[in-house]
Amino acid sequence: MNIRLYNAQILTMEKNRPVFRGEVWVKGGRIAGILDCGAECPNVDNITVETRWDLELDCEENLLMPGFKDAHTHSAMTFLRSYADDVPLQQWLNTKVFPLEARLSREDIYHLTKLAVLEYLTSGITSIFEMYLSPDAAAEACIDMGMRCVLTSGLNNFTSSIEQTETEYLKWNSESELIRYRLGFHSEYTCSRELLEGLAKLAGKYHEPVYTHLAETAEEVEGCKKRYGMTPAVFLDSLGMFAYGGGGYHCVHMSEQDMDIFDRRGMYVVTNPASNLKLASGIAPVAEYTERGIPVAVGTDGPASNNCLDMFREMFLVSGLSKVREKDAASLDAAEVLHMATVNGAGAMGLSQADVLAAGRQADLILIDLHQPNMQPVHNIPKNLVYSGSKANIRMTMINGRILYRDGNFDVGESREEIYERCNEIVKRIVYA
Amino acid sequence: MNIRLYNAQILTMEKNRPVFRGEVWVKGGRIAGILDCGAECPNVDNITVETRWDLELDCEENLLMPGFKDAHTHSAMTFLRSYADDVPLQQWLNTKVFPLEARLSREDIYHLTKLAVLEYLTSGITSIFEMYLSPDAAAEACIDMGMRCVLTSGLNNFTSSIEQTETEYLKWNSESELIRYRLGFHSEYTCSRELLEGLAKLAGKYHEPVYTHLAETAEEVEGCKKRYGMTPAVFLDSLGMFAYGGGGYHCVHMSEQDMDIFDRRGMYVVTNPASNLKLASGIAPVAEYTERGIPVAVGTDGPASNNCLDMFREMFLVSGLSKVREKDAASLDAAEVLHMATVNGAGAMGLSQADVLAAGRQADLILIDLHQPNMQPVHNIPKNLVYSGSKANIRMTMINGRILYRDGNFDVGESREEIYERCNEIVKRIVYA
Repeated sequence: MNIRLYNAQILTMEKNRPVFRGEVWVKGGRIAGILDCGAECPNVDNITVETRWDLELDCEENLLMPGFKDAHTHSAMTFLRSYADDVPLQQWLNTKVFPLEARLSREDIYHLTKLAVLEYLTSGITSIFEMYLSPDAAAEACIDMGMRCVLTSGLNNFTSSIEQTETEYLKWNSESELIRYRLGFHSEYTCSRELLEGLAKLAGKYHEPVYTHLAETAEEVEGCKKRYGMTPAVFLDSLGMFAYGGGGYHCVHMSEQDMDIFDRRGMYVVTNPASNLKLASGIAPVAEYTERGIPVAVGTDGPASNNCLDMFREMFLVSGLSKVREKDAASLDAAEVLHMATVNGAGAMGLSQADVLAAGRQADLILIDLHQPNMQPVHNIPKNLVYSGSKANIRMTMINGRILYRDGNFDVGESREEIYERCNEIVKRIVYA
Repeated sequence: MNIRLYNAQILTMEKNRPVFRGEVWVKGGRIAGILDCGAECPNVDNITVETRWDLELDCEENLLMPGFKDAHTHSAMTFLRSYADDVPLQQWLNTKVFPLEARLSREDIYHLTKLAVLEYLTSGITSIFEMYLSPDAAAEACIDMGMRCVLTSGLNNFTSSIEQTETEYLKWNSESELIRYRLGFHSEYTCSRELLEGLAKLAGKYHEPVYTHLAETAEEVEGCKKRYGMTPAVFLDSLGMFAYGGGGYHCVHMSEQDMDIFDRRGMYVVTNPASNLKLASGIAPVAEYTERGIPVAVGTDGPASNNCLDMFREMFLVSGLSKVREKDAASLDAAEVLHMATVNGAGAMGLSQADVLAAGRQADLILIDLHQPNMQPVHNIPKNLVYSGSKANIRMTMINGRILYRDGNFDVGESREEIYERCNEIVKRIVYA
């Protein structure tokens, strides 16, 4: 499809480039060109003379920008949303989550992932960094709907294996332009030393970064110290796990030494503020990370712990929690947080072609409604987005050049009601049987 | 207008009453009846035989519930949204807010309030507890749009007076069914002792509760201790200010003795979590208040400090921040927070007729879209609302029996674009001149 998005305000998220009026042209899955109109956009006829557009969309002076990157999630946990809340993390995992997850089939995960994808689209999320059981099922759901997904293995003592991880890694980095696969494991506390050593070796073989849940709770850190006499980051690094970089999900309880490792290895912190509040895990020292130059990306975590998949809420929290933690209302301003939720997310996930709006980049973009009252007046668009934005501002979500969501309607191959129905059947069987 | 809302799920917010299927009938500004259909709703013809409906609205199995009560706001501060962020409270007030506010005319406040009202409607807020300059202008804007508003005086050394407060009190408690007026003042630190004594006397004359900003920052509390040797709550109570109860906005830094006063006087805490994060004021000990039986209501604070007027974000924060503050993931569950945002809000504002859905109560209600992906599956509706809900779930907002907002469209006497235009003219003149 050749799509012309005209009469727009444009925030490319390129460094130091302010919002301007213009057009974005999409051909196939890529951005073919970006037109900066200055004060007045040129006549339509002069532009369209060379190209046959399949669709010309009047953006009505709304904002085009790169889609949000949800840099940590477990999509299929939709089946537990609002089922198991208000309990601490370890109890939540051991008594609520793990026993029910054990009953999920591969097909269940396929359908439950689809429910999450619908919600990502309503929140302007154009790619997800997905860790869950059955990566194959998640990948297939994303392909079938048109969602961009970077898988990472949730390898642990009970599910998957080094061999399976390698097979998935090889398959999903060449199967579909929508899917990539990065090496990962669930966490230090769910993996034996042997398993971790095996993964570190695999990372060495392919020169790949590795991602994992890290320092999410104080208990996790204490447990690792007891087992190995080191914090999780130090222990894992001592195995050579991060020889080619990688990242940690959560990173709420990090020591100076842990941060030094992240700094030295060029690793990403993926912060998940809503989940950390809801499970009472703590408030991550995000300002410290950024002061050290450690890149921070933002994730929702899964819908069982958050419980929504809403990057607007996460962005407000990254800034607001940092301000209250540092006792400094100037901490982590809106522009910095918006960068985390877009450019840094792409960096963490290895999506170098989906970071900003520019000619040649992947056409993963969103249209933000500036005509809603929460976006008025327009003193400062990044501040409006981070401090005041909501899902209700998402007019359109485009991934890989396809409009998957527009004005409340989905174009994902089947109706939302069909997806709900299938998920509710699963819930009935798994949770209430 | 006689309006029949049928094919709904209904959450009345009456104590211990679960969600049921049914209908809500509205006549004039009141709820005329609520029908619990049990498993199957009766035939339409049998119901409508006695009444001529002006409108019959199919709720499509979505949720009817009481509207949210925004129990603390400064509506007209819309003009500063995203203008003066990322600075601490006192600096923010003194260098950014006060100098620009001094330039606002009564008419400016009228128009700027209207912008806020549009946003309240998109967030399912059906009444506001409003403190700002020119209460008359705010009241008129609300009347003209159909919004329910409880005014409280922002009395301080620089604006308003005891006499003006008394005049407003008498006028606005008898002028319009949409408006009520409670006694109040800006804060201890902006009022002389004489002024405060005068207001306490006025409260005694009319047996009225009194509302104020209280213990918002640690500096405020320290300042009062220096001036009077007491915390603000203790000092104000010593003047007889709370002889007939009242409430405190924010209440982030409260002593045991302060809480004892609230307890003894039957006073309300109105918590404003997003504003307290954004201005780095702190995290209020809300769980302590509820354990002591002090009723807590929820407010957004004004759009210059928050910056959005979104009760969904506030509700998540009340619960999430309490969990992380108390290091207890079970702290303040969703049902309790939903009660705060509806029933307790009505209590704090003195709106005894707008608390729950019941025959005879004011028809202030909202329709929540349960067919959005963030509301699926439906394990638990209150948890879905508090942990996962967003503005995007508001299908309809009705105040005093009038539908003011439905499916993204406003019915408030003029178009949203006209309101934006007038506000942008004011911004241009006040902020950028």
